[in-house]
Amino acid sequence: MNVELYMNMLGQKAREASRLVARADTGIKNKALLGMAAALDANRAELIDANRKDLENARQNGLDAAMLDRLEMGNKTIDGMIEGLRQVVALPDPVGSITDMNYRPSGIQVGKMRVPLGVIGIIYESRPNVTVEAASLCLKSGNATILRGGSEAIHSNQAVAACIRTGLTAAGLPAEAVQVVETTDREAVGKLITMPEYVDVIVPRGGKGLIERISRDAKVPVIKHLDGICHVFIDLQADRAKAVNIALNAKTHRYGTCNTMETLLVHEGVAEEVLGDLVDRFKAAGVELRGCAQTRTLVPAIKEATEADWSTEYLAPVLSIKVVADIDAAIKHINHYGSHHTDAIVTENYTLSRRFLREVDSSSVIVNASTRFADGFEYGLGAEIGISTDKIHARGPVGLEGLTSQKYVVLGDGHTRK
Amino acid sequence: MNVELYMNMLGQKAREASRLVARADTGIKNKALLGMAAALDANRAELIDANRKDLENARQNGLDAAMLDRLEMGNKTIDGMIEGLRQVVALPDPVGSITDMNYRPSGIQVGKMRVPLGVIGIIYESRPNVTVEAASLCLKSGNATILRGGSEAIHSNQAVAACIRTGLTAAGLPAEAVQVVETTDREAVGKLITMPEYVDVIVPRGGKGLIERISRDAKVPVIKHLDGICHVFIDLQADRAKAVNIALNAKTHRYGTCNTMETLLVHEGVAEEVLGDLVDRFKAAGVELRGCAQTRTLVPAIKEATEADWSTEYLAPVLSIKVVADIDAAIKHINHYGSHHTDAIVTENYTLSRRFLREVDSSSVIVNASTRFADGFEYGLGAEIGISTDKIHARGPVGLEGLTSQKYVVLGDGHTRK
Repeated sequence: MNVELYMNMLGQKAREASRLVARADTGIKNKALLGMAAALDANRAELIDANRKDLENARQNGLDAAMLDRLEMGNKTIDGMIEGLRQVVALPDPVGSITDMNYRPSGIQVGKMRVPLGVIGIIYESRPNVTVEAASLCLKSGNATILRGGSEAIHSNQAVAACIRTGLTAAGLPAEAVQVVETTDREAVGKLITMPEYVDVIVPRGGKGLIERISRDAKVPVIKHLDGICHVFIDLQADRAKAVNIALNAKTHRYGTCNTMETLLVHEGVAEEVLGDLVDRFKAAGVELRGCAQTRTLVPAIKEATEADWSTEYLAPVLSIKVVADIDAAIKHINHYGSHHTDAIVTENYTLSRRFLREVDSSSVIVNASTRFADGFEYGLGAEIGISTDKIHARGPVGLEGLTSQKYVVLGDGHTRK
Repeated sequence: MNVELYMNMLGQKAREASRLVARADTGIKNKALLGMAAALDANRAELIDANRKDLENARQNGLDAAMLDRLEMGNKTIDGMIEGLRQVVALPDPVGSITDMNYRPSGIQVGKMRVPLGVIGIIYESRPNVTVEAASLCLKSGNATILRGGSEAIHSNQAVAACIRTGLTAAGLPAEAVQVVETTDREAVGKLITMPEYVDVIVPRGGKGLIERISRDAKVPVIKHLDGICHVFIDLQADRAKAVNIALNAKTHRYGTCNTMETLLVHEGVAEEVLGDLVDRFKAAGVELRGCAQTRTLVPAIKEATEADWSTEYLAPVLSIKVVADIDAAIKHINHYGSHHTDAIVTENYTLSRRFLREVDSSSVIVNASTRFADGFEYGLGAEIGISTDKIHARGPVGLEGLTSQKYVVLGDGHTRK
């Protein structure tokens, strides 16, 4: 297969399909989503069979248990995919929504209408359920999608793609509204991210290496998520109980998520009191602690944090702790070493809470709550295609609205410019 | 001078300054803008003198009259710059504005806060007043700026830059909040657009060649404007008087602007009647007409439009005319040949007006008004840094809000994730 020609063809078809999807009624799009759910339900045997092939190949290729776990698509995964589709059906359709219609002195009326981006390219690794999740969010927001999953999930993804097509055509939408790349050739990714004539935006989902590579080579905008080096700052005027609960939750609720705390900052005036309690509880939870010099004078039994620790996303039961002089030092540390993802302050001080919200340059800034709340579902977006650490276009959790843009609408009555 | 080191230094200083500008009060920013206006007023002689040097060089280098006209900075230009600064002072400050604060089932309260982008790089050609205009919009929106003007305006721009610095320091803001590149070395542009660590977004203002080059080579997001191939579609149910007025205004109000009509589409059912009148009036205005075959059977005395005409931005008194079968053909033509900038329909039909608004994929879609209204001032944005033909981030006229982003703010009361 000539990969370049093949990708061009996919692109062209996606562009054509995008025009039809962009103007599809909410009812039609929901019908397609429910049709996909029905097809997934009706084809469980085929899906599990296709997945078995992928799992066998993966085992032969020596993939580790975690990879195999992510790759597996059993009845429970399929249930989850179906439930996910129903949730997307229930979300309000952002497309066509008109806001801020105001009359101008000239007499024209001007406002904004929310519109799809066009064609979205999604590049992801193992998990086959991403295929359904990404396709459904893109479709509901009126976009066509080209999906490129990991080569290890090729059979699973093609089986899922067949169900997606069934849903689309049952609703009268073009099957090309969602296309899953059929080749595992790596050149396909290179082509997908460099055809601005057919693809409007790329959303990579996967490890940092994948995302960095794509951002570097892409010729289209990339909605991306790099590190999640999140902080909690316990201020001098923090409520002690809240501080302890939030710090524990932010670290130990889940270790592998991007909104997990990686560095704890503690005001020097409360460090002794707060750390005494917290360190024991972190240790009881099995968290390895690494502290700055000042931390280690208070809690000598912990390892020393190196300069590299402050900019490391552990994604593991490891936490670095630093004692800081005041909120200025905390904000400076966060803006310098953090990844502009999610950072929280624990304080009862009104003025400091306002300063933290304004001055910390992160996609989510939080007062008196756990960093673990930085999530599309928790924020009420319904579902998320990812969390953006970019500033342009979308920042923070990206839901349906992040997959749309706005155009100006102008209503006149024969108005001409003076 | 080592250009790479120099640009790195500018970038580093801009990044540092951006943190201070981002949290500056509205009052402080306005004070700086008024200080710039005062400095421009007090240094008219120096400004005109510096400009004289540029004009002399330009004449020696054989620049044409249009270029010299754009380069000239006399008392009237300076008056305009001062007036522009006062207008930006009067605009509401978008930074820090919090919207959509809602309680979630978990008990946390979530909303969005508008924040500056950081450091904005502006690349522009001749006109020295762009220096003040761009700097003032970026400052008011809390961003630091690096400006790279045309080499032919280097003396004028440096003189303007000195006034800008005076205003900044008088208000207690860092002079590095607005930096004008001091070298005319072309390498400076190449460096400016490839240092994502220091520059968050690039706004090129100039000809299509410049913008295409920058978009191709940039390693940072570019807010860009390419063509303005704008259409007016006169529907079968158009009010005849409105149609004639709008078409004339859209073409003849100004020829060199991006929102000027370049192609007129006319429903075949009204073509004879409407064109009869319009063609005479266009000819009287000195507009050269180029028609499709059907147009030429109705108005034989005009030139034939070639395929290239449909995708040409004339920026001149030239208009292509095409007779179409219905709104479907009109929308198809616009989405295919247009530049997704600004397109208008003239119709009294409710359903067709709604279809046009929804289905035309342009940054501004207009019913019964001239395309010439697509403009930041006319839309009430106060001022514009440019018009974006992109879909990502900003679309259409870009004002202060387009130079900002939003972050999530989360307020809790000790909340942890269950």
